[in-house]
Amino acid sequence: MKRVATQVKALTFDVFGTVVDWRGSIIAEGRKLGRRKKLAVDWPGFADAWRAGYRPAMDRVRRGELPWTNIDGLHRRIFDELLPRFRIEGLTEAEKAELNRVWHRLAPWKDSVAGLKRLKKKYVIATLSNGNVALLTNMAKHAGLPWDCVLSAELFGHYKPDPEAYLGAARLLGLEPSEVMMVAAHKDDLDAAARTGLRTAFVQRPMEFGTKKEVAPEARFDFNAKNFVDLARQLGC
Amino acid sequence: MKRVATQVKALTFDVFGTVVDWRGSIIAEGRKLGRRKKLAVDWPGFADAWRAGYRPAMDRVRRGELPWTNIDGLHRRIFDELLPRFRIEGLTEAEKAELNRVWHRLAPWKDSVAGLKRLKKKYVIATLSNGNVALLTNMAKHAGLPWDCVLSAELFGHYKPDPEAYLGAARLLGLEPSEVMMVAAHKDDLDAAARTGLRTAFVQRPMEFGTKKEVAPEARFDFNAKNFVDLARQLGC
Repeated sequence: MKRVATQVKALTFDVFGTVVDWRGSIIAEGRKLGRRKKLAVDWPGFADAWRAGYRPAMDRVRRGELPWTNIDGLHRRIFDELLPRFRIEGLTEAEKAELNRVWHRLAPWKDSVAGLKRLKKKYVIATLSNGNVALLTNMAKHAGLPWDCVLSAELFGHYKPDPEAYLGAARLLGLEPSEVMMVAAHKDDLDAAARTGLRTAFVQRPMEFGTKKEVAPEARFDFNAKNFVDLARQLGC
Repeated sequence: MKRVATQVKALTFDVFGTVVDWRGSIIAEGRKLGRRKKLAVDWPGFADAWRAGYRPAMDRVRRGELPWTNIDGLHRRIFDELLPRFRIEGLTEAEKAELNRVWHRLAPWKDSVAGLKRLKKKYVIATLSNGNVALLTNMAKHAGLPWDCVLSAELFGHYKPDPEAYLGAARLLGLEPSEVMMVAAHKDDLDAAARTGLRTAFVQRPMEFGTKKEVAPEARFDFNAKNFVDLARQLGC
């Protein structure tokens, strides 16, 4: 077992794509709604477009072009733009609000809960997501994710990859950055975490975007794992 | 069952005295340390004095006389003043830091874990404590407290009973104040919560201060309960 594994006290997790399958969950819920409302919608395309709008929307907040807006708010802005484009018609305001909250109900990858339970025995496990606190809390309850603590960009008024998010998490956990390890399926998230002094663990989620994506391990990360159960094994949990 | 029970979506809990027995825990840990270090100390007096320093220290922060200092920091300031007064001598810096962190290891009242597990089935359960996030997270892990979310005055830069703490909790949970119920063994905490629009549940903790304290129910609170299991019963959990 690497020495890093004993120096680290807490693991902070990216959530969308790393812990939960946003794409599969949105498609499944969209199709259910589509059947009920008799809508013929390209739900995979809708899910991808919704997610594609997320980073530019956050970047507008990061650059100060938009005042702080939490992810529920950003998701809703993007969602409202996509409705005509995907011909999603005839939804009541309550149905729109409910579909926007699908992000609170995303399903975990099949190893997520078992892996987190093992990791929790040895480490403090916390979210460190751009998702807002309410979203992450509701998702944890829905999916049975056993977080010790729900941390969010919302608490710092800074979205990842701003350094304030990573450093804020270490500060709230009462730890040095080197005692915290970021776990993510996205290399840019890990690189930003590493620049602030956090340790890094890459987890392969090849099917996040529906078609197989590049998930090669990188020597610059402290750990490279196939999934959370593999990460637990490598960390001696 | 009262109508309030179905309108409320989340319960926020005061922690010190309401969920955990700070006094008994500090005395027990102090005595253990005292035996090891051959110190004759009035540990109940020490615990009471430590706790007595807490409110005045927070009030200095609340009035702006001290910059924001988290509870670990305030506890340590008070602790350092008490050492000579209680003739606690010969501790290394590491031993002092360890004893200051006794607040991270407080033991729950005997109904706390069972009651929280029942309440969690129906409600989001979160801390809303003046304790800092790291303290509350470590305590939850140590005591098996099954929080959905760890909320703290630290996140708002305002200690209870400042309204920002209660309103901030509702905001982060994505709820209206009337959808949140504060649960506490301290009537002033509940009165401050009620002034911001939160619902209130009083829980009797007669032995918090070692000698029986006044715990009469009050009609102004939405619920009055003997303990967490009784509260769960009254809320239909």
